[in-house]
Amino acid sequence: MKENLYIIKIGGNVIDEENKLSLFLSSFAAMQSLKILVHGGGKIATKIGDQLGIKSKYIDGRRITDDETIDLVTMVYGGLVNKKIVVQLQAKGCNAIGLTGADANLIPAKKRPVKEIDYGWAGDILTENLEFGAWSLLLEHNITPVIAPLTHDGMGNILNTNADTIASAIAVALSKIYDVRLIYCFEKKGVLENVEDENSVIHLITKEKYQQLKAEKKLFAGILPKIDNAFAAIDAGVKEVLIGNAEDLLQNITDKISGTLIR
Amino acid sequence: MKENLYIIKIGGNVIDEENKLSLFLSSFAAMQSLKILVHGGGKIATKIGDQLGIKSKYIDGRRITDDETIDLVTMVYGGLVNKKIVVQLQAKGCNAIGLTGADANLIPAKKRPVKEIDYGWAGDILTENLEFGAWSLLLEHNITPVIAPLTHDGMGNILNTNADTIASAIAVALSKIYDVRLIYCFEKKGVLENVEDENSVIHLITKEKYQQLKAEKKLFAGILPKIDNAFAAIDAGVKEVLIGNAEDLLQNITDKISGTLIR
Repeated sequence: MKENLYIIKIGGNVIDEENKLSLFLSSFAAMQSLKILVHGGGKIATKIGDQLGIKSKYIDGRRITDDETIDLVTMVYGGLVNKKIVVQLQAKGCNAIGLTGADANLIPAKKRPVKEIDYGWAGDILTENLEFGAWSLLLEHNITPVIAPLTHDGMGNILNTNADTIASAIAVALSKIYDVRLIYCFEKKGVLENVEDENSVIHLITKEKYQQLKAEKKLFAGILPKIDNAFAAIDAGVKEVLIGNAEDLLQNITDKISGTLIR
Repeated sequence: MKENLYIIKIGGNVIDEENKLSLFLSSFAAMQSLKILVHGGGKIATKIGDQLGIKSKYIDGRRITDDETIDLVTMVYGGLVNKKIVVQLQAKGCNAIGLTGADANLIPAKKRPVKEIDYGWAGDILTENLEFGAWSLLLEHNITPVIAPLTHDGMGNILNTNADTIASAIAVALSKIYDVRLIYCFEKKGVLENVEDENSVIHLITKEKYQQLKAEKKLFAGILPKIDNAFAAIDAGVKEVLIGNAEDLLQNITDKISGTLIR
């Protein structure tokens, strides 16, 4: 039987609020199983970028990572945000290690090819090259990886990579040796049947249910890629995907008391 | 017989110059033995601090680390400088992992007590608590630690810690299980008998020779603490300390063709 591994992704909104982050990290530190935390960037990169005169550029909601911006996110995501999480987890009794995908070559990637849009130093993960050796080395010695949303191209360049994508790529790679459950923590209580109503959480989405919900056009368009990615991860070996609120106790999400289970 | 381990410290002047850094990293990557790289900060923190309106404050040549400054050095040392070294080493075939002393609790420290001067978030290493478990786990799996000059207090705070001190504390702790050689790379060719003459490198300094050089007042005052620390490390179990130029091939320093050997 494979050991259980939880991979948990937190986004910007939790990171930006000190109290929320501290509560979340307490609940993360208390989890007894093997675990990995993947964090997004938060608004702090934009704020520091503004102070440094680096303008955030977006096309269709995706950040364009020019030379200045990759340095900025390397500092802020890989340094400030990552290490602040690590010291807090250490203080809460979790032996955290803060890493990017460049460290120990954890997440090999390639620069996104320029087609209509030049995304700059954005990285697409080379999932076929993602090995589990260094990951399991750390996990099996009770060291908990905390991953910043950065990868590298193996040619000396750091690449900016979406944290959701990192979480799901790691989950798929590690499902070869662990029973992996992937948890996306975000600002809502789960997948909502009515986006206006926080109490309309759908507790279980199967493929059949998903087809039905889509046919009835009940789901908020923004959630569809998350669910599509969740099913792709499940098809590739991940046991379950859970979507819940970063302010809920993680234990309530893993126990399926709150949030949405995709299976 | 214990395995050989080299611990190499590079300072700011190499880090600030892209070409010099790249050459140094090539020579570091080429070393076949177990190795750890400890890096200083470079002038980039001051430059970015100026842009952010954070003034560098010094008392007696020591940086005062206030709240803004600890965030700044966490970003710059722990993020920008550290990860740029890691990606380059990865590209040169060295499986580097970039860490601070907070990660995996590698370097426990305590905030320096306030006496006449309040150094702020400056950390003194708790050498008696520095364990070799996580270090040897990485080294024995051919993963090369690259250490930023940051530690933590175990209570959720990052601390700014001198890179020379980190290198020597790690060297002493790891000398229990490895034959450790500590190399300080700096801007001169070694310990000079005449500070004006780069060709006056003293190739070997023993304790007797050191007493004699001090009696003759031949040494530049600035080098004395480095040599005192070197002998302290040797008395605590480190095999040899080498002081050489970051622009020399590391192999020439380890082969004792260039630089100063302290033993």
